[in-house]
Amino acid sequence: MRVEPPESWLGAVPLFEGLALGQLRALGEISEERQVSKGEIIFSDGDDGAGFFVIKTGMVKVYKVSWDGKEQVLHLFGPGEPFGEVPVFTGDRFPANAQAMEDGVVMFFPRRSFLTLIRGNPDLALKLLAVLSKRLRRFTALIEDLSLKEVPGRLAAYLLYMKEIRGGDMVIELDIPKNLLASLLGTIPETLSRVLGKMDKKGLIESEGPRIRIKDLDGLASLAETGGGL
Amino acid sequence: MRVEPPESWLGAVPLFEGLALGQLRALGEISEERQVSKGEIIFSDGDDGAGFFVIKTGMVKVYKVSWDGKEQVLHLFGPGEPFGEVPVFTGDRFPANAQAMEDGVVMFFPRRSFLTLIRGNPDLALKLLAVLSKRLRRFTALIEDLSLKEVPGRLAAYLLYMKEIRGGDMVIELDIPKNLLASLLGTIPETLSRVLGKMDKKGLIESEGPRIRIKDLDGLASLAETGGGL
Repeated sequence: MRVEPPESWLGAVPLFEGLALGQLRALGEISEERQVSKGEIIFSDGDDGAGFFVIKTGMVKVYKVSWDGKEQVLHLFGPGEPFGEVPVFTGDRFPANAQAMEDGVVMFFPRRSFLTLIRGNPDLALKLLAVLSKRLRRFTALIEDLSLKEVPGRLAAYLLYMKEIRGGDMVIELDIPKNLLASLLGTIPETLSRVLGKMDKKGLIESEGPRIRIKDLDGLASLAETGGGL
Repeated sequence: MRVEPPESWLGAVPLFEGLALGQLRALGEISEERQVSKGEIIFSDGDDGAGFFVIKTGMVKVYKVSWDGKEQVLHLFGPGEPFGEVPVFTGDRFPANAQAMEDGVVMFFPRRSFLTLIRGNPDLALKLLAVLSKRLRRFTALIEDLSLKEVPGRLAAYLLYMKEIRGGDMVIELDIPKNLLASLLGTIPETLSRVLGKMDKKGLIESEGPRIRIKDLDGLASLAETGGGL
């Protein structure tokens, strides 16, 4: 069997994509490989977040158990995906349970060593931030692509509904936080802003902060009906 | 006019969401507020990435100019959104131009001060990583929701197509990187893995790494035809 240096595997993990060889090697040095068996609990709700994991092989389920014992699966993670990193990065306890769904191998990155690594190596922290930023940007664009067919129509319907329940006033004050409205419409705040901007440019509304004035009621109504794009 | 401390505004920026007050204050201290006028070039393609920006008010266009002088808009950013942070985090030059689309205010975070801040404050780096990780996770779930209607059908069609061009063999070796296949299908690798897993559980295929064996040709064909979910 050929033994691969850990950095060659780590370089293929999206979280570490584009890191320099030396940085991958440093990460490899603080990581610990762990075998997990099908059904094994990797961490439990409330455990101290002593470190995070990246799956090498296998599948891991992250879930909560409700008061009445019902299991709610939050995420399923596969090869190359990190899990437990959010509470570990924030210094919190694990807010859920993680269980191996099949025999596999996970890499464990202890929080303490990770912190030390970053302290001596702030460039690595920036690189990791860059990787995540870049992925976020790609994901934002994809969400925009996927939701741009439906969000304008839904937003138009929402604005017409708000106008009705506010007694027909053409000026609507959005009293719901933008991120909440975005998830109500099945998208993200960034896309919502863009859609508002486009509606404004098309002369359908005038949007200024949380204040929206309906300028073209018929246009808005037809957008809400057809559900079409802008 | 009431002057707000910068940290109160910074706390509402998604990139800094959930940071402690002291951390926001430290970020506020290294940031510089800049007025930008409509049409102003904020940075140009090839400029040294001396720092990144977060938009306070206004709208910024990030674009490339092709050899024949044509402008290609890459992103439009609005209030609360960072721009230029990827090249700044990686230590590269700006790979595109940024121009203010309206009068506005941007906050500038010099790379050098940001690095110093993180060196003395590795917890801040971890917190920022946590913020980005959490957003990525939310975005991943949303992409899954948005694309789960269409990706299974498209993947089924792709597998049938591969089977045809490989002379009818029921075993297909995916010789395309997973992230490329994911974008071909309009999704992300994480969702692609999940869809493969579900197809496997439903008995349509047997999937092991890049090797996929078609087990239920009719089922796959009907999935490709109806484009329905799993």
